[in-house]
Amino acid sequence: MIIGFIGFGVVSQNLLKLINNPKITFITSAEGRSNKTMENIRQFDIGVENSFKEVAIKSDILISANSPSVAVDVSKKYGKYCNGIYLDLNNISPDSTFEINKNVKNFIDGAIIGKIDSDNPIMYISGKNAEKLLFLNDFLNVKLISYKIGDVAILKLLRSTYTKTLSALLIESFEVAKNYNLENEFFDVLSVTEGNKFKEKSLSRIKNTLTNSKRKREELEEIINYFDDEELIMVKAALRKLNQL
Amino acid sequence: MIIGFIGFGVVSQNLLKLINNPKITFITSAEGRSNKTMENIRQFDIGVENSFKEVAIKSDILISANSPSVAVDVSKKYGKYCNGIYLDLNNISPDSTFEINKNVKNFIDGAIIGKIDSDNPIMYISGKNAEKLLFLNDFLNVKLISYKIGDVAILKLLRSTYTKTLSALLIESFEVAKNYNLENEFFDVLSVTEGNKFKEKSLSRIKNTLTNSKRKREELEEIINYFDDEELIMVKAALRKLNQL
Repeated sequence: MIIGFIGFGVVSQNLLKLINNPKITFITSAEGRSNKTMENIRQFDIGVENSFKEVAIKSDILISANSPSVAVDVSKKYGKYCNGIYLDLNNISPDSTFEINKNVKNFIDGAIIGKIDSDNPIMYISGKNAEKLLFLNDFLNVKLISYKIGDVAILKLLRSTYTKTLSALLIESFEVAKNYNLENEFFDVLSVTEGNKFKEKSLSRIKNTLTNSKRKREELEEIINYFDDEELIMVKAALRKLNQL
Repeated sequence: MIIGFIGFGVVSQNLLKLINNPKITFITSAEGRSNKTMENIRQFDIGVENSFKEVAIKSDILISANSPSVAVDVSKKYGKYCNGIYLDLNNISPDSTFEINKNVKNFIDGAIIGKIDSDNPIMYISGKNAEKLLFLNDFLNVKLISYKIGDVAILKLLRSTYTKTLSALLIESFEVAKNYNLENEFFDVLSVTEGNKFKEKSLSRIKNTLTNSKRKREELEEIINYFDDEELIMVKAALRKLNQL
């Protein structure tokens, strides 16, 4: 079996390390890549084709793991050459998965949630042929969500709905606690019910949200636009909170 | 040393069980109590005085653990007879602690957070003489928050700010996930970062909030009134969310 990569960042590199089976070989291409990137690629046990078109033709599983902004374009360019499974692992919206599905025969919508470079990452998949990727459970933790394209992307949005709104709540509670000089006690008291790592995790969430507040606001806007019909009182408040920072 | 109880519910009973030292005796009174309550009290190793006034006079530590609605009245009635420490363990507002402080000489503002009938409850205390209760660490987990009356009550409000707003967020996220038939997957995905018990804890919070939504709304209103000067975007949204249920 041949697994081809379009995009060879942390996600692809980690998958290559984890999927350790002599019957599986990996390929990618040097097309349009800098010498520096190629030097990096040559550190791995991976075949290098002349073009991504060839990678698409030869792959039983073609993995697109680039960046959300190019995911649809990549599917337009190379999807038609892929007769195997086309697995997208970019952090894309449900609408982008529907778009990609038009350009690709056997599309599977995927996401790695949690630490992407961990020893046992969890990969969520959905799509008509998603079962065909369950053999990867020998190497990592694969969870079939449904046979519907878009479900993994929606699940990512739902996750994001919760975590980003929670961060806004943490920012607000922490502000008030600080005004009463009770911020450490606030974390201590909540650790009793929220677990030992509550303080550490909360401070890291607050810092991360404040540092990347522009991106977080854009992601909250995306969520609000996508779940347009839903009554999103809390999520909209989170966006207002971040807008006021 | 004599510890006196005004109010002999779960909190008092558990403290009596935990504070196990031959040098410490316990008293309460039969005043105004039903035969049934007295039968219950006689199950415990506790002296019974004729009046709560006598309990107040004799106690080195007088514990008021009744109900929030009578806490201030109790301090008015018996506070003046108490030359020892007066410890209030009712779930009262910061303003009520300031009120009680006017009626009592050595007031300590206290709260038991987490399970009140556990083997190792955590008791938070604040007040000028709060250090004098640290010897109770031999029997339970005592945390001195500050020397300022009201700080423990504020800490309870801060805790409540977080947990009640979180419940509103959980209700909203769960609703959206359900509309996409992804509610189980939503919990699974979040368990990766929020811990194994995320689903169980979240469902119990959602149920608890829906069952007691009137009380939860009142508590959110109290928080909003107390922290009036603060910019409470998230907490106000939580109240709107619960109002729309």
